[in-house]
Amino acid sequence: MQITILGGGGFLGRKLAGRLAREGTLGGKAITGLTLFDLQAPPALEAPFPVRCLGGDVADAATVRQAIPAGTDVVVHLAAVVSAQAEADFDLGMQVNLHGTLAVLQACRALPKPPRVVFTSSVASFSGGQEARLEDDARQLPGNSYGAQKAIGELLLQDASRKGFLDAVNIRLPTVIIRPGRPNKAASSFVSAILREPLLGLDTELPVPEDFAVWICSPRRAVDWFLHAMTMDTGPMGLDRGINPPGRSATVGKMLSALEAVAGPAARARVQHAPDPAIAAIVGTWPGSFTADRARHLLGFSEQESLEQIVQGFIEDDLAATRAERGL
Amino acid sequence: MQITILGGGGFLGRKLAGRLAREGTLGGKAITGLTLFDLQAPPALEAPFPVRCLGGDVADAATVRQAIPAGTDVVVHLAAVVSAQAEADFDLGMQVNLHGTLAVLQACRALPKPPRVVFTSSVASFSGGQEARLEDDARQLPGNSYGAQKAIGELLLQDASRKGFLDAVNIRLPTVIIRPGRPNKAASSFVSAILREPLLGLDTELPVPEDFAVWICSPRRAVDWFLHAMTMDTGPMGLDRGINPPGRSATVGKMLSALEAVAGPAARARVQHAPDPAIAAIVGTWPGSFTADRARHLLGFSEQESLEQIVQGFIEDDLAATRAERGL
Ligand SMILES: NC(=O)c1ccc[n+]([C@@H]2O[C@H](COP(=O)([O-])OP(=O)(O)OC[C@H]3O[C@@H](n4cnc5c(N)ncnc54)[C@H](O)[C@@H]3O)[C@@H](O)[C@H]2O)c1
Ligand SMILES: NC(=O)c1ccc[n+]([C@@H]2O[C@H](COP(=O)([O-])OP(=O)(O)OC[C@H]3O[C@@H](n4cnc5c(N)ncnc54)[C@H](O)[C@@H]3O)[C@@H](O)[C@H]2O)c1
Repeated sequence: MQITILGGGGFLGRKLAGRLAREGTLGGKAITGLTLFDLQAPPALEAPFPVRCLGGDVADAATVRQAIPAGTDVVVHLAAVVSAQAEADFDLGMQVNLHGTLAVLQACRALPKPPRVVFTSSVASFSGGQEARLEDDARQLPGNSYGAQKAIGELLLQDASRKGFLDAVNIRLPTVIIRPGRPNKAASSFVSAILREPLLGLDTELPVPEDFAVWICSPRRAVDWFLHAMTMDTGPMGLDRGINPPGRSATVGKMLSALEAVAGPAARARVQHAPDPAIAAIVGTWPGSFTADRARHLLGFSEQESLEQIVQGFIEDDLAATRAERGL
Repeated sequence: MQITILGGGGFLGRKLAGRLAREGTLGGKAITGLTLFDLQAPPALEAPFPVRCLGGDVADAATVRQAIPAGTDVVVHLAAVVSAQAEADFDLGMQVNLHGTLAVLQACRALPKPPRVVFTSSVASFSGGQEARLEDDARQLPGNSYGAQKAIGELLLQDASRKGFLDAVNIRLPTVIIRPGRPNKAASSFVSAILREPLLGLDTELPVPEDFAVWICSPRRAVDWFLHAMTMDTGPMGLDRGINPPGRSATVGKMLSALEAVAGPAARARVQHAPDPAIAAIVGTWPGSFTADRARHLLGFSEQESLEQIVQGFIEDDLAATRAERGL
């Protein structure tokens, strides 16, 4: 198995690469090579197979062809300009999220054998808001450029699959928590911050009410889904290559209770209410829940972890590194 | 009112241009200039306002900027590679239908005032088949590259509208009948041919059963919809710039009865049953019907003509020209 991860230096790319390195196999077959591609070449990785680390722009067709050489079996396309940045810089979002995905399509199409492509779309490609519980055939009516570009990427890879140029699985990821590192400018940054910052012993602000619901998943489960999508039989998907995976709809209040259960009341007390109508307006349009029936019952995507497991998973996997990174 | 029609030399572009020339006004305001743009410069047009005829490729950004000069109030974007051709030549379809629409977006965005853009999407961007009666919030799951490219064009122009770069109305046209001229390679070519060829005194073949239903509209009504979309208030549309207009779901049998009512039993006898499973497989995936509630009741799009009016309209508007064009 020859694998390429585009955006391999990011949050989920690094986690997936680490998991592949630990397991050495994918779907029962030995991994024979891994290419990690990102704007800056990702750091070297210890693995029982050769790892190539390349730096370059996913929107540059020639560079992407190098990252996806002949013999590639699986491409995981995570490279993206995320929501707040794509909204602030329309041209950059189009360049990376649209033209980058076009370059990936063309590089895959040039291969002798159509590779599996796992593409990460997003819950931000839907509207609906807090009250929504979206069915699997809900349409994507994006309220932000990032979501529009993700929906377009899905259409491109879906049609390329129908044409036999590649074989895509488009996973519409929930908000993945707990993101390690620092708070960022994403409107959803607070969803990780209200758990991460207290675990680091820091104060943080909650911009929405405690009954605000978010569709979430853990990084461990996101990686499990990637591994499944990298080898699953796509036959039962037919034309429809979009997956709403089994995330969890959780209110902020429930998340804070899980924090308290794992780390005590002092941790929860680090979270101050600071209503922010601007943030509430953006995240308030994202659907709070999905049925995810097809992913669960037809396509074999694994169930979500509990909130306590998610908090515990961050402590085990990411707390020390985040502390070190932030000099705490 | 300064207007540009991209694809202004095609079937619907010529009809729209002729109507604008006859009326001289749009939405109660005088038309001050019209640009007709197509691969080959469209023929000159008599009109009470200046008409510029330009030839060029809609995928070429610099050329499109010339076709959409400063001061343009309305752009009608009809330029496209149609279904069968986009399926046979993927790269050409992507070039014209995707990169062309991107070039239109960028040219509009460069204008001092965001123009109205009327974009023609298609029923081919949906799945569903004969039994379907699609609601206004049905998702687009295209089964052909043309439909995928149209759905992508909608997403691009919808997001550009949200950003204030332009102000789009995306009309998902039904199959427009009766198309003048010759039979073409579109899978839906027979829908017009079974009415047009008998009216020309020619035999023709019907590849599907008589109870096969098609979602249709007349060219007169398509032009009415364009005129409405060129000036309507887009406020009530909100984020959702896609329109399923009030077409008509008609079986082939009903169309042939209308032909007989207008042109007599000899005309109907020109149509021979010649089942073609390949054609039936393609057109069989297109939805046979839409509710079109939003277009009808909220957005003021006019109702469809009767089948008899459609046959009569072709006789009045296009029969003589088609006879001449085909040397009959
Ligand atoms: N993390 C989430 O909550 C979440 C939710 C929904 C969807 N997603 C999607 O999942 C994917 C991975 O998410 P993540 O959290 O790891 O994001 P991330 O921002 O941590 O990683 C994305 C990577 O893409 C790289 N990148 C950006 N522009 C590039 C370019 N022009 N060329 C090459 N690489 C470029 C970045 O450097 C970064 O390392 C993204 O596509 C994201 O949109 C993530
Ligand atoms: N007629 C229908 O039944 C129908 C149904 C659904 C949607 N539509 C859409 O409505 C629009 C108009 O339809 P029509 O029947 O008039 O089509 P048409 O094919 O008669 O006209 C399209 C025009 O676009 C022009 N064109 C193609 N490539 C071009 C390029 N690279 N640069 C510039 N111009 C180019 C063609 O020369 C042609 O004149 C199209 O976008 C079509 O996809 C039509």
